[in-house]
Amino acid sequence: MALLVQKFGGTSVSSIGCIQAVAEKIAISRSEGHDVVVVVSAMSGETNRLMGLAHEISDQPSSREIDVLLSTGEQVTIALLSIALDEQNCPARSFTGAQVHIRTDSAHNKARIINIDAARVKKALKAGEVVVIAGFQGIDEDGNITTLGRGGSDTTAVAMAAALEADECHIFTDVDGVYTADPRIEPKARRLDVITYEEMLEMASLGSKVLQIRSVEFARKYNVQLRVLSTFKEGDGTLITAEDEGMEQALISGIAHNQDEAKLTIVGVPDQPGVAYRILGPIADANIEVDMIVQNVGVNNTTDFTFTVNRNDYKKALGILKNTASELDASDVTGDDRIVKISVIGIGMRSHAGIASKMFNALSEEGINIKMISTSEIKVSVVVDEKYLELGVRTLHSAFNLEDSVDLGG
Amino acid sequence: MALLVQKFGGTSVSSIGCIQAVAEKIAISRSEGHDVVVVVSAMSGETNRLMGLAHEISDQPSSREIDVLLSTGEQVTIALLSIALDEQNCPARSFTGAQVHIRTDSAHNKARIINIDAARVKKALKAGEVVVIAGFQGIDEDGNITTLGRGGSDTTAVAMAAALEADECHIFTDVDGVYTADPRIEPKARRLDVITYEEMLEMASLGSKVLQIRSVEFARKYNVQLRVLSTFKEGDGTLITAEDEGMEQALISGIAHNQDEAKLTIVGVPDQPGVAYRILGPIADANIEVDMIVQNVGVNNTTDFTFTVNRNDYKKALGILKNTASELDASDVTGDDRIVKISVIGIGMRSHAGIASKMFNALSEEGINIKMISTSEIKVSVVVDEKYLELGVRTLHSAFNLEDSVDLGG
Repeated sequence: MALLVQKFGGTSVSSIGCIQAVAEKIAISRSEGHDVVVVVSAMSGETNRLMGLAHEISDQPSSREIDVLLSTGEQVTIALLSIALDEQNCPARSFTGAQVHIRTDSAHNKARIINIDAARVKKALKAGEVVVIAGFQGIDEDGNITTLGRGGSDTTAVAMAAALEADECHIFTDVDGVYTADPRIEPKARRLDVITYEEMLEMASLGSKVLQIRSVEFARKYNVQLRVLSTFKEGDGTLITAEDEGMEQALISGIAHNQDEAKLTIVGVPDQPGVAYRILGPIADANIEVDMIVQNVGVNNTTDFTFTVNRNDYKKALGILKNTASELDASDVTGDDRIVKISVIGIGMRSHAGIASKMFNALSEEGINIKMISTSEIKVSVVVDEKYLELGVRTLHSAFNLEDSVDLGG
Repeated sequence: MALLVQKFGGTSVSSIGCIQAVAEKIAISRSEGHDVVVVVSAMSGETNRLMGLAHEISDQPSSREIDVLLSTGEQVTIALLSIALDEQNCPARSFTGAQVHIRTDSAHNKARIINIDAARVKKALKAGEVVVIAGFQGIDEDGNITTLGRGGSDTTAVAMAAALEADECHIFTDVDGVYTADPRIEPKARRLDVITYEEMLEMASLGSKVLQIRSVEFARKYNVQLRVLSTFKEGDGTLITAEDEGMEQALISGIAHNQDEAKLTIVGVPDQPGVAYRILGPIADANIEVDMIVQNVGVNNTTDFTFTVNRNDYKKALGILKNTASELDASDVTGDDRIVKISVIGIGMRSHAGIASKMFNALSEEGINIKMISTSEIKVSVVVDEKYLELGVRTLHSAFNLEDSVDLGG
């Protein structure tokens, strides 16, 4: 018998039928003897519908009132799911973020959780009730309703699991776990039984959209056992947890890719202190996020400077960079928005040399030219032409033997 | 400069356009220098939509969860209206029932307000903001969301006006005031400038649906100056207030009618103690509300017993009464659901004899047969055949000179 926090996202509760199916799933956990706390999102489409109403009135609606408006979405779901659970003979009790004192800061639309008073939830659990909590929302010190921003329901679930010291936090989604690569690209991709927080964070930051980065960070911080499962399919999913000794054998846990980026280069800028700031300052001022940054030493005291941005910001960034180029008297500005970033990720590479060279070798054997390289302690990323996406992912998946049924120590 | 509480019902906020129009109306009050607290209902149709979702899941959804569900309706409206007010350069701040501590008992779906902590509202008013409050909802002692039942937003507005000691409480609706009779039946009906709480209570209980009875009772108890106005038309509406000396000249304030009732008679029951209870007990046990009750002394120690119920309960009541009749060995049961109740109402009749006889005389001159009579201190009601509705109302309107422009002391 365990205490479980189970989170169901918008697509899992998108209709009355889905809500009833979720109630059945929870009833099974109850019948197995577990205490269950459920965190739900708004029914899919509802948040957009509400935002549409606000935007009919104003181009820039007050962020405080948007939070009041959007938080009704989850409130509808908690009531309907509680009613559906009652029908399954699972006594249930719903709570809004305010009712369980999910205290946040006052940054409307993107608030951060400060603390949770779990007393009320524990009381309901003790009474034998399933506790159904509205995700994505909280209250600030003055009692104003706040929201955590999109995907915030994952964070609510993890924070609640931490506050309750739950045995596991289950994130139900439309995929049945974390894979060694995107199965739509590499059919031989294998579901991982276990992955570390650090690997999952790299996966998320590299475009694998299974979990929000913030919820994984939160889980790592409070050591919450996080499990990704499918709402629609049976299975144990993937457990995301802290590194332990059993994991050391696994060199590489997966191949991630990100097709959302574009690359820009400013050529022949003076190689002097402060030049990086003069190039990236105006980009940051325009609220454009920069991902990879590479600087090559050039000839004649000049240097080439390359960075990537989200593809949506490509044109805007190119315009800004051309401006900067004329100010800095640079020789050229080039760009490419038909690129893909491919990364190998694994806790194991910390203690194994040669991962990067093995990666570069495998790619070169297939004639794939590398345009940029970036590394961290547990990942190596390369930027290649977009046309090499499938070939690159499959080549690396095979080079690191990921299709083998290696037990990753779970 | 006054402090006004202004309440707008569901039809007044039924679309984005309507919400914008309401914001403009409030902006005018602000520009006249008034402090404004607004109470709003859910957009019309929303409550039914939400109830529909709940009933797709369960025939008997938990009343606690229904309150969680329905309270989102007003929460959407307060956010949208606050955004619309911001667009009118009227800084606004929304509050749910919980946020302004509208404390109620725990009777979900039909809770009663126990008290209101007005401190938060006063603080926002002091900051120059329009305060927008979700009507119809509150929280109980344990922080559970409650609703006051249909029409509860009127009660929220009056209670808020009482707590804030507001100068007036404006109820905006789709009629522009209280009339001496229903203008659809008596085209000569005249809008009243002033009416007493007591008269308004009789009007409401007799089927004139301008205001909920509970909100008028509340206003009387706390001496809140209540004004009924049209959302869609200019005008001063009707002020509902305490009796004062200036009003004494008005004999009759209006003619009300109620077409929603049916009448049942049990004939020839033994005239002995306890018989009324044996007849009405089973009716009450079936949750059928009884309005008028008349008992005639009959012959041979028997009596005839007549009462009225809502027309929707007519068939059910008739079945129960036939059962009772055979138990009591009564000689017959009769019923009629084609009746109408017509009433003359006025504080002035307290000190004037002959109102009833004048009423009966006027009706008899038109050949209208009276089937039942019931009186209270400030009203006389008669039941007549439904076909006499228009003739009866117009006859009495004219007999008591209500079309004259008598100043009712406002």
